[in-house]
Amino acid sequence: MSTDPARRGEDTPGPLAILAGAGELPRLIAEEVSRSGRDLFVVEVEGETDSDFSAFAHARLPMGAAGRLKALLTEQGCRDVLMSGNFRRPRFSDIEWDMGTVKALSNIMRLKRGGDDKVVNGVVQIFEGEGFRIVGPREVVPEFVAPSGPLGRHKPGRKARADIAFGLKAIRQMGSLDIGQAVVVLAERIVAVEAAEGTSAMIARCAELRGNGRIAAPAPSGVLVKAAKPGQELRLDMPVAGIETIEAAKSAGLEGIAIESGNVLVPGIADVRRAADEAGLFVVGVDVDESGGSRSRS
Amino acid sequence: MSTDPARRGEDTPGPLAILAGAGELPRLIAEEVSRSGRDLFVVEVEGETDSDFSAFAHARLPMGAAGRLKALLTEQGCRDVLMSGNFRRPRFSDIEWDMGTVKALSNIMRLKRGGDDKVVNGVVQIFEGEGFRIVGPREVVPEFVAPSGPLGRHKPGRKARADIAFGLKAIRQMGSLDIGQAVVVLAERIVAVEAAEGTSAMIARCAELRGNGRIAAPAPSGVLVKAAKPGQELRLDMPVAGIETIEAAKSAGLEGIAIESGNVLVPGIADVRRAADEAGLFVVGVDVDESGGSRSRS
Repeated sequence: MSTDPARRGEDTPGPLAILAGAGELPRLIAEEVSRSGRDLFVVEVEGETDSDFSAFAHARLPMGAAGRLKALLTEQGCRDVLMSGNFRRPRFSDIEWDMGTVKALSNIMRLKRGGDDKVVNGVVQIFEGEGFRIVGPREVVPEFVAPSGPLGRHKPGRKARADIAFGLKAIRQMGSLDIGQAVVVLAERIVAVEAAEGTSAMIARCAELRGNGRIAAPAPSGVLVKAAKPGQELRLDMPVAGIETIEAAKSAGLEGIAIESGNVLVPGIADVRRAADEAGLFVVGVDVDESGGSRSRS
Repeated sequence: MSTDPARRGEDTPGPLAILAGAGELPRLIAEEVSRSGRDLFVVEVEGETDSDFSAFAHARLPMGAAGRLKALLTEQGCRDVLMSGNFRRPRFSDIEWDMGTVKALSNIMRLKRGGDDKVVNGVVQIFEGEGFRIVGPREVVPEFVAPSGPLGRHKPGRKARADIAFGLKAIRQMGSLDIGQAVVVLAERIVAVEAAEGTSAMIARCAELRGNGRIAAPAPSGVLVKAAKPGQELRLDMPVAGIETIEAAKSAGLEGIAIESGNVLVPGIADVRRAADEAGLFVVGVDVDESGGSRSRS
């Protein structure tokens, strides 16, 4: 019987492989998958993975060791691969080159220029060219996907709903530029836009802007709006809003958080709901229609 | 003879009134205007103005004292008004209300919501409704307006020119959202977008992104691109690139700065040129055509 993952039938996917980047997200997902009863195998990446996976079957590889990764996943019988957590853009000097890496070189070279969208689409192609299947959190942990309507007991008021609609429109308009993973809107004015810094750093900036008077409105005010970009590869790069997001928003004096229903991951959603209530913030899932407009059910 | 500023002839504009916000810019402009031989009168604003204007005719008013400001400018024979430097969005509680403020109340209320563009257009209307003429730096200090081509001896290479074109396109696309006064582009990826934080804070962020690995490319790399937004009110809100911009860009490991020729103010341009050469950075004025494309002459 062949061990080539591409030749196995659809009905025997084997254990889920989780490539774990930095942050708590891969661990929260691993725990949820494990609870659901599916076998999993965690690949820790040197210099990236920072959660403890000792409770799961796991191995550790250096960044970029493509050949060793392929051999390991094949040996473990994994066909489905979930990449989760943060991965820095590797410096070329950090990559451990092996025969697999060299084989993927032409693809990797294409990733050197261009935004995140190009990088993630390239990664999908490399894995699928080797016979693996890239799966996303929506498939693996559907219970962590943002539902429609308020999470918890607080709801946005009229002004906040206007800010949410403005933020969603802005995210749509910036999407093709590969920026605007999230924005903070206050009184229909965008006060912060996320680019390479990440959502937490962008929210932290709003606390500074309050301190130096560039945001004059008293707290709590301002809404974090987070949605998928048009055409975003949600398997590899799904927007996330978790407990740290709520803590950051609370520290920055924001009034609440709006996330696109269906397209934003809320890891540990029951804890997030509780944290929102304790912080006194609204967290609302908004439906975004084809035109980019919002249909909040709150 | 009437002292109503609106009734005086075009040929007797009187001294230039400078409403001085925070930062060095108003002082650099006052010095240049003074060198050109035109009389000027500086209005310092309490809590905002932080440069020394003791060498010039000047007075100090609280924020929002519209009636006293009108009386003062009329008494000084000023018809032309230049607002320069940074003004925080005032909290309503910081405003000293007088009869003039109350008269302007309906206009001011309209400024409470909406982005910078709406605010500056509203300010122009309030002044012009009182018979004053809002003038801009392009009229008052044309020698400080960015020319086409390199300022100093360094020039952008092929990759940097691609980043500049990408940044200009992005600024055009974001213009209607009232954000993107400046962006930092590296390898055709936008790594930072300016919103409420100001250009200096945005550039400083790039230094942090280098420190935490979110910008992996070794320094010097990355280009600051600064241009006017479509429809930007250049009299009140002209983009600025000065010596601090060069110092910030150098600290962040950027390779250079691209500014839109004709639409970006370079205060103390001779010193800026020298600072660019000493820092080893290119500073290039790029022509932007109607379609938003660039025609760099470098």
